Amino acid sequence: MKTGRAELICTGSELLTGKLNLYAPLFHANLSALGFRIAREQCCGDSLEEIAEAVRAALKRSSLVIACGGLGPTFDDLTRQGAARALGRRLVYSKDCARILSFNYGLKKLPPNFRNQCLLLEGAKALENSRGTAFGQVLTRGRRMLVLLPGPRREWEPMFPNFLDEEIRAFFRLPALAQVKLRAAGLWETQAEKLLRPAMRRFRKLDFTILAGPGTVDFIVSGDDRRGAVAGAAAACRKLLGKTVYGAGEDTLASAAGEKLKAAGGTLACAESCTGGLAAKLLTDIPGSSAWFLGGAVTYSNQAKLKILGVKAATLKKYGAVSAECAREMAAGARRAFGASYAFSVTGIAGPGGGTPEKPAGLVYFGLASPGGSRVFRRQFRGDRAFTRACAANFILDELRKVIK
Amino acid sequence: MKTGRAELICTGSELLTGKLNLYAPLFHANLSALGFRIAREQCCGDSLEEIAEAVRAALKRSSLVIACGGLGPTFDDLTRQGAARALGRRLVYSKDCARILSFNYGLKKLPPNFRNQCLLLEGAKALENSRGTAFGQVLTRGRRMLVLLPGPRREWEPMFPNFLDEEIRAFFRLPALAQVKLRAAGLWETQAEKLLRPAMRRFRKLDFTILAGPGTVDFIVSGDDRRGAVAGAAAACRKLLGKTVYGAGEDTLASAAGEKLKAAGGTLACAESCTGGLAAKLLTDIPGSSAWFLGGAVTYSNQAKLKILGVKAATLKKYGAVSAECAREMAAGARRAFGASYAFSVTGIAGPGGGTPEKPAGLVYFGLASPGGSRVFRRQFRGDRAFTRACAANFILDELRKVIK
Repeated sequence: MKTGRAELICTGSELLTGKLNLYAPLFHANLSALGFRIAREQCCGDSLEEIAEAVRAALKRSSLVIACGGLGPTFDDLTRQGAARALGRRLVYSKDCARILSFNYGLKKLPPNFRNQCLLLEGAKALENSRGTAFGQVLTRGRRMLVLLPGPRREWEPMFPNFLDEEIRAFFRLPALAQVKLRAAGLWETQAEKLLRPAMRRFRKLDFTILAGPGTVDFIVSGDDRRGAVAGAAAACRKLLGKTVYGAGEDTLASAAGEKLKAAGGTLACAESCTGGLAAKLLTDIPGSSAWFLGGAVTYSNQAKLKILGVKAATLKKYGAVSAECAREMAAGARRAFGASYAFSVTGIAGPGGGTPEKPAGLVYFGLASPGGSRVFRRQFRGDRAFTRACAANFILDELRKVIK
Repeated sequence: MKTGRAELICTGSELLTGKLNLYAPLFHANLSALGFRIAREQCCGDSLEEIAEAVRAALKRSSLVIACGGLGPTFDDLTRQGAARALGRRLVYSKDCARILSFNYGLKKLPPNFRNQCLLLEGAKALENSRGTAFGQVLTRGRRMLVLLPGPRREWEPMFPNFLDEEIRAFFRLPALAQVKLRAAGLWETQAEKLLRPAMRRFRKLDFTILAGPGTVDFIVSGDDRRGAVAGAAAACRKLLGKTVYGAGEDTLASAAGEKLKAAGGTLACAESCTGGLAAKLLTDIPGSSAWFLGGAVTYSNQAKLKILGVKAATLKKYGAVSAECAREMAAGARRAFGASYAFSVTGIAGPGGGTPEKPAGLVYFGLASPGGSRVFRRQFRGDRAFTRACAANFILDELRKVIK
């Protein structure tokens, strides 16, 4: 199958001085769905010459070049100018863009830094930005396309479904590709790979990618979808992964649990110690979660565990806060305090400090109280504080979704 | 100021198809300590032509080029060949390398894939690998240096202290560099730029970068530190930014508040509605936060606000949950329930749904209860759900740190 050759240029000195560039996988996902593979990815500092040279060279090699970042209103935003120099084109002031900004921000007269945002490469089409002042730009020349996108993910990401998918499809006429992302939890990347091997062998012409997260694995199937190959492969993979699959696409463990709660007419509360609000945050990331999430208690101190959740002083004294007994009482207490049908609890040692030989950093107990009874779990995670906390939150959200009838 | 110009080329098709490249910040740390800045970072797939072109172009632009990955023994490891083609040099079999591998692996006769590992660019110096079979290679030509490194971090990272630091220092003789990151909140990127302009004019030879976050701005000063220029510029910037500066380096708003609480012997609790645990999560991201953070209540339902925080039913009825009155009672309730000296509350409409003309999505009220009395704030944020929630959490953490005596 023929795929188009794309290149990605990310601009911003911070990407060369310590900030991680998280964008390559995201652009890969957007572009591979359109039939493009990224053949080269580059990061440039905020330098006019650097950007111009990178754009010029990329357009020589590739039919689609995306430059991301450097479209803001400040002195170090130089991508527009760099692209203009690379192409030998002028920047022209767009009255349409000015009208859109005036309208969106309720301004009669645009201040100078807004006026800069209205400069387009001569001949370029502007892509409206629903979340910022920087327009995206699409310029075609011969059989090549150059796309300029604003740097923040929340600004450029919606431009794909809103405009770019269609622009790229229409201009290049590549075969329709499909992509399915399956999301699973409670298994390792290597376990997933082993389980999936038969499907990968059977559907040799498709692309498969495994991405490991904290206690989660994403599995992406993509390729030419004629004869429904991608859907067929995804169905085969789903079968092989069994109950570890919690969703697809943009589903999260929290949204999967939320959907099941909504369907069952249940409500949820939680009690967190070592995750310190992370699980509640993941649940309330979901718009409309107030329909089934009643609330949570972050009980970092023993006093709060006693007072708000009704954990017994004797339990804390005899077993300690990091124990199966405390986890069970925390979950029951949260269920009672918030009047919810389901409640879970997390109590452990996130680290790096606070561990002992008996209870090392990474040890976490969980409680799960539901209409059908209560359970406790014990897990030992290995990683830094952030990873341990993420694994713990994902673990209990996964158990929660499995227990909801 | 003169810093050396370096480029990084990472090879491996996985970097272009979904795997995050974690190396740029690591190489930045190693190289900036040597007086080099990375001017360009690229990822290439496992293609001979692609690698050769990237190496050739990078050596034209930069005095130090590091290519990482693709030195393994399998068919898709092509960096040696790509570099040889870029330079027009042969690959020669090194008997020294063969002796080292024989010794390290206790082999009398090397198998074919081990023999491949002994191919060096003509004129290159080999860097021993204590954790694998792939040698690093250093080749100088005129005033340029090309370095080939194995892909796995655990293999290339020790090569810096063991060999490369010294190789690079001896060959280039560059001045020492410094970098300071100031972190501020409660102002816009453009406001920060305006405030900082005098310092940027005064210290023309240094590099300045502004990074905007949700309600926060980072400002990075870097350059040649002879005569303490970087420290001087950072001090000048700090003065210009005034109280908006909450920290430096890896400080966060939560850690800044935590430090002040610890110094003051205070304790903290919180009550969150629309941020749904995010503020507590940010506070408990900090190792050791249990010393001053007692806990929080995520009160998503009205019932939870009444029962756990003691908000009055009359208040909810008369003003609603998203109101200054409710925010004030939530903060007071959290302070009481957890027995903390400071408490804050957040209640608003994160969106996208749930807004009305009087109370649109993005409207958030905050309460702050402290030994010195209580305050409420009202802010209207513009952005999606995640951005609004991040802005809201950052806003109240910033107000908290400012109020702690």
